[in-house]
Amino acid sequence: MTPRVREILSWYGADNPGSLTNLARLLNHGRLGGTGKLVILPVDQGFEHGPARSFALNPPAYDPRYHFELAIEAGCNAYAAPLGFLEAGARDFAGEIPLILKANDGDVLRDDKDPTQAPTGSVEDALRLGCAAIGFTIYPGSAHEGDLYGQLRALAQEAKAKGLAVVVWSYPRGSGLTKEGETAIDIIGYAAQIAAQLGAHIIKVKLPTAHIEQEAARKVYEAQKIPIATAAERVRHIVDCAFAGRRILIFSGGATVTDDDTLLDEFRAIHAGGGFGSIIGRNSFQRPQAAALQLLGRAMDIYAGTS
Amino acid sequence: MTPRVREILSWYGADNPGSLTNLARLLNHGRLGGTGKLVILPVDQGFEHGPARSFALNPPAYDPRYHFELAIEAGCNAYAAPLGFLEAGARDFAGEIPLILKANDGDVLRDDKDPTQAPTGSVEDALRLGCAAIGFTIYPGSAHEGDLYGQLRALAQEAKAKGLAVVVWSYPRGSGLTKEGETAIDIIGYAAQIAAQLGAHIIKVKLPTAHIEQEAARKVYEAQKIPIATAAERVRHIVDCAFAGRRILIFSGGATVTDDDTLLDEFRAIHAGGGFGSIIGRNSFQRPQAAALQLLGRAMDIYAGTS
Amino acid sequence: MTPRVREILSWYGADNPGSLTNLARLLNHGRLGGTGKLVILPVDQGFEHGPARSFALNPPAYDPRYHFELAIEAGCNAYAAPLGFLEAGARDFAGEIPLILKANDGDVLRDDKDPTQAPTGSVEDALRLGCAAIGFTIYPGSAHEGDLYGQLRALAQEAKAKGLAVVVWSYPRGSGLTKEGETAIDIIGYAAQIAAQLGAHIIKVKLPTAHIEQEAARKVYEAQKIPIATAAERVRHIVDCAFAGRRILIFSGGATVTDDDTLLDEFRAIHAGGGFGSIIGRNSFQRPQAAALQLLGRAMDIYAGTS
Amino acid sequence: MTPRVREILSWYGADNPGSLTNLARLLNHGRLGGTGKLVILPVDQGFEHGPARSFALNPPAYDPRYHFELAIEAGCNAYAAPLGFLEAGARDFAGEIPLILKANDGDVLRDDKDPTQAPTGSVEDALRLGCAAIGFTIYPGSAHEGDLYGQLRALAQEAKAKGLAVVVWSYPRGSGLTKEGETAIDIIGYAAQIAAQLGAHIIKVKLPTAHIEQEAARKVYEAQKIPIATAAERVRHIVDCAFAGRRILIFSGGATVTDDDTLLDEFRAIHAGGGFGSIIGRNSFQRPQAAALQLLGRAMDIYAGTS
Amino acid sequence: MTPRVREILSWYGADNPGSLTNLARLLNHGRLGGTGKLVILPVDQGFEHGPARSFALNPPAYDPRYHFELAIEAGCNAYAAPLGFLEAGARDFAGEIPLILKANDGDVLRDDKDPTQAPTGSVEDALRLGCAAIGFTIYPGSAHEGDLYGQLRALAQEAKAKGLAVVVWSYPRGSGLTKEGETAIDIIGYAAQIAAQLGAHIIKVKLPTAHIEQEAARKVYEAQKIPIATAAERVRHIVDCAFAGRRILIFSGGATVTDDDTLLDEFRAIHAGGGFGSIIGRNSFQRPQAAALQLLGRAMDIYAGTS
Repeated sequence: MTPRVREILSWYGADNPGSLTNLARLLNHGRLGGTGKLVILPVDQGFEHGPARSFALNPPAYDPRYHFELAIEAGCNAYAAPLGFLEAGARDFAGEIPLILKANDGDVLRDDKDPTQAPTGSVEDALRLGCAAIGFTIYPGSAHEGDLYGQLRALAQEAKAKGLAVVVWSYPRGSGLTKEGETAIDIIGYAAQIAAQLGAHIIKVKLPTAHIEQEAARKVYEAQKIPIATAAERVRHIVDCAFAGRRILIFSGGATVTDDDTLLDEFRAIHAGGGFGSIIGRNSFQRPQAAALQLLGRAMDIYAGTS
Repeated sequence: MTPRVREILSWYGADNPGSLTNLARLLNHGRLGGTGKLVILPVDQGFEHGPARSFALNPPAYDPRYHFELAIEAGCNAYAAPLGFLEAGARDFAGEIPLILKANDGDVLRDDKDPTQAPTGSVEDALRLGCAAIGFTIYPGSAHEGDLYGQLRALAQEAKAKGLAVVVWSYPRGSGLTKEGETAIDIIGYAAQIAAQLGAHIIKVKLPTAHIEQEAARKVYEAQKIPIATAAERVRHIVDCAFAGRRILIFSGGATVTDDDTLLDEFRAIHAGGGFGSIIGRNSFQRPQAAALQLLGRAMDIYAGTS
Repeated sequence: MTPRVREILSWYGADNPGSLTNLARLLNHGRLGGTGKLVILPVDQGFEHGPARSFALNPPAYDPRYHFELAIEAGCNAYAAPLGFLEAGARDFAGEIPLILKANDGDVLRDDKDPTQAPTGSVEDALRLGCAAIGFTIYPGSAHEGDLYGQLRALAQEAKAKGLAVVVWSYPRGSGLTKEGETAIDIIGYAAQIAAQLGAHIIKVKLPTAHIEQEAARKVYEAQKIPIATAAERVRHIVDCAFAGRRILIFSGGATVTDDDTLLDEFRAIHAGGGFGSIIGRNSFQRPQAAALQLLGRAMDIYAGTS
Repeated sequence: MTPRVREILSWYGADNPGSLTNLARLLNHGRLGGTGKLVILPVDQGFEHGPARSFALNPPAYDPRYHFELAIEAGCNAYAAPLGFLEAGARDFAGEIPLILKANDGDVLRDDKDPTQAPTGSVEDALRLGCAAIGFTIYPGSAHEGDLYGQLRALAQEAKAKGLAVVVWSYPRGSGLTKEGETAIDIIGYAAQIAAQLGAHIIKVKLPTAHIEQEAARKVYEAQKIPIATAAERVRHIVDCAFAGRRILIFSGGATVTDDDTLLDEFRAIHAGGGFGSIIGRNSFQRPQAAALQLLGRAMDIYAGTS
Repeated sequence: MTPRVREILSWYGADNPGSLTNLARLLNHGRLGGTGKLVILPVDQGFEHGPARSFALNPPAYDPRYHFELAIEAGCNAYAAPLGFLEAGARDFAGEIPLILKANDGDVLRDDKDPTQAPTGSVEDALRLGCAAIGFTIYPGSAHEGDLYGQLRALAQEAKAKGLAVVVWSYPRGSGLTKEGETAIDIIGYAAQIAAQLGAHIIKVKLPTAHIEQEAARKVYEAQKIPIATAAERVRHIVDCAFAGRRILIFSGGATVTDDDTLLDEFRAIHAGGGFGSIIGRNSFQRPQAAALQLLGRAMDIYAGTS
């Protein structure tokens, strides 16, 4: 156990040793094990965007085993997916990589301006599949946010009692926000704070822009001169918003990019700003495996501080 | 046990000794311990208003430990916060100050003219974190008030069976009220009564103005010549509305003020009018710690009758 | 919070902040508050030995209120009693002293060479009465020891989940032991170990003699030259047996003595040997209140190191 | 509400207002209503001794309605019986007299030197039948006492949560006691104490003799010169044993006597000694109704202090 | 994941991926990780034999942290202990080594010719402490064997549903066996079979002698010329008895030996005979840490095939 991992665990004093053990499993696995940084492979896009949109670019990715293998070979800290994908590989790959059961999911078969997600996995499922954590999406800003917060409250309570870790995808969306607002610095910071207040051990948000969505917030950002000009500064601010860095905060890789340099710059900014790593889905599994391994490797090099 | 605390406990004859014990913990802790008065530090603004708006004015306040330390050092009766903030310090500060778990919360990511709050904490959480009480917000006047009343009913029943105290934030809001009406004397009195009727042990309302919102109420206030000209008179009236003073009624400190004299005058009016104290959030944690300690100290002096 | 109390709490890393908070309530209350030492008043003798044998020596002690008052006035850390005695005073004395609900009890209406105790209180009872802990007796060496261990396992699990502390009275008795063996150094050490392994936060044993009961143990005591000649040495050994001092270990005052010097010497030995204090029943409530207060005061002086 | 009833209710501070209300129903009903004294008609002998032994002496008593009518006409405070007898009259006499559901019963079809009783009624039954209380028999001294204590613990917890009163028949019996010991002063005192410690609101014991059963007790009775020469002195001692008079303690009428003077002398002794009344079964329903009414009336006169 | 670990996991086809994951955690941790061999540190002797007999030889072992540190430093696959020992270190050492919660335990305070063990831990406990497995002792041959089998059945069912592994200590004892019979080749083989049939994932037995206890068995051993002359042959036979090697079978280190060569020869025999490793308690923690590390290291060298 490295001093850094021990330090991170010390932030979770209200949790039982079971949850700490599973956090340690996530932090100590893979190429970044022990650094306090994480690169996680998430594959919920089959549910969230549909299979062809998700997997046709790299057809082997239709096969659930592909993602286990990718995550293992790349040396990711964990692999996160909905129930079905995990069930399809959990026996064959038992013990090879920590698993995160995505416990709610939403599809895009309806165009809801106020999105929500349905419960698709349980704590019992996570235990029988050998998962280290459950994952849960909230949509701060949606008219359904209250339902999601309430569901997370109940699920997190049960997960913590059973010694699991809790990862929250906190994605601002909904009729109260502009499209630009979904990644505004104030809104992403707010989303990180809400997830932390709801008891998340690990929080996943999108990389914010310098846009400020709410007038009441703008006054504060300007008056206090909060530095948000660079991506690294913005990351540092979001880290502050997640309990002054005392909660593990990771960033989503976002939409598929064609230009890896942009992506790598984002990782560098996250690292420089004190972020804890990335969760990289489409930019890994939508390209050929060799290219994916290369990208994930470069991301890990950045977070390991060796590049 | 002072006679005053004993007298206050005698009002709660339907409660079991467990809830009385936790009320006593709140009333007997800190600099005002034993006086029957309370100054409580609440920090739910990270959730309610967003982190930058809440903490950027005093950046150490991003850290959840800051608020435990502030409440302890100031000698507050209790510290109230959502699940995440309490989880982040409950072990390190176990036994140092009574805790109140805010069990529902709302954000401002949507502009709801009829606001509500989502469940974010449970009685089980309160017990495992060592809390003396749960806190719950209701919005009398909102289209969702019935849901909130119903949720409070269930939560309070469970909390009382388990020996916890119940603190209700009763904030009139919603499409049925004007903005001015939210702090109108008749409406605040009504909100205090509703919280008391819902079984609250401790009720928190805003300081009322002399405005009267409802015509039917205005006739009575005028006919009966209810004195509401001064802040102290209005406090006394609200105290009457909370079961003739037989429920603990405290007042929120309200928005950040730049002029402490205004704030101190409010505390003096609350004290003079028979109020039981204040719950002071933004006016304490949004200023440097030394200044916060000074303000909280002056508030306590007023409630202790020594200033 | 004194450094010593903080240190003691640090030993209980598997417990939630609720149980730590209740341990802190016990450790921080009364004249010994903060020292890490405890003097507890237990009054279960009405059940365990019968009312006349227990209270006729000091008739005010028939009244359940008497014991609350004695414990409070003496400045004890806590008052421990069966359900009925606690129910008879819990409202009147709510919040005045931490309570420990004795959750099982046995009478002496039968002469069982293998004694047991019946369940007489529950975690629900403890919560509704505002208790900080439950107490439970085990009889290592009795033919019924397995039933008692199993009942304690279930009760302790529930108590810990609900944030209570767990105090175990570990009294070796039964057909496998000689009368002398019940207080033999090896057997008392064994009893302390068993209670600790069963998850007790606080362990209560009798002061051991230098007798060694088991041949297999005798060989080790002699070969390793474990010092057990003086009472203080024996206390130190029992403290070692309770996880090398990392569990709170207190000693029962034993049968009524007429010679206080003997008793005070015992307290001095417990203090010198690193014991955490005493639970003093018959030697306090079976004498007039003034004399009881004097004795308890002298005990506390010893444990405070001021005498 | 008379001051005396109010005083009695004040002893039950741990109970909810529901249990107090049902205690008040018992204390305020019938000819002794408001005096703090009770005469209760119990008819469980059909189960406990068999029907012919119980009812053939007065054949109308085979009819369950007979006992309702007797209790009502006599002005008893309550009528206590097993499930079947209550079910047979609860509708016809609904609201006419407080009912006590005897929740366990034993028969004499086996000659157990260590008797027990089987569960025969529940809290649910008591509520659906409109009962004010449940009744439960324990046999301190029986090898099965632990089972009975444990069953009572669970039943009383549920009854109290549901606002019922709890009446405990505490009858020392079993292989650990001599026949004479079953009514020995020390043993009856012990039985009263055990029932009180188990949380009984109302305790029923047999009238004790001056015999002392246990040597350890004898020493105390003699050394402390506890007065037990007269029946009234013995009653006073048993009252002391039941929390210094702070629990309602009533006495069973015992076996059928042919000489009413003996019986009336017993009532006078109970009254003189501070007992709270009698539960009179066989001596009422085993004689013609007119005679029964006369006897019950004379008992009530004694307890009312008018004779 | 090595092919050997993958092969071992393939034997447990009825188990869910959660239990496989936890088996993999055990098999992949420490110096023997990946070899399919295990060396486990068990410390239940404080409960099973008493603290002085267990720890006085090496006093640092009184401290529960010592054993965590020893197991970690030695590179054991897992550390197994009762509830109290695990609770005392589970937070500080979270994530550092797989834990096995011993879920039943027995003491030696009674000389039962038919021994049993009491429940001392639960599946809930194992989950909240972050354990990979529960451990359970059965005594085939004891009059209480049926109770133990039944308890194991229920516990194993729950553990497997929650994704834990199940380790069974199968120790023949009881009035049906001679002392010599407890380690007889036929009886140890029988004990291994019973544990396997009860659903154990991992079975722990003592190293057998060439003695044959049961006449009916002797005939077969002789007729079939089962080779049992050497320790390695006997190990191979026991491995056969545990589902032809398709269950993980490990051997206890037995009583403290002064001659390490004997012990190392045993490990060599276990290895040669196809055993899966050793569980080494007294021979490790009862000697100074450096010596313990040396011995455990030599054992691991043997099982790794490097010595």
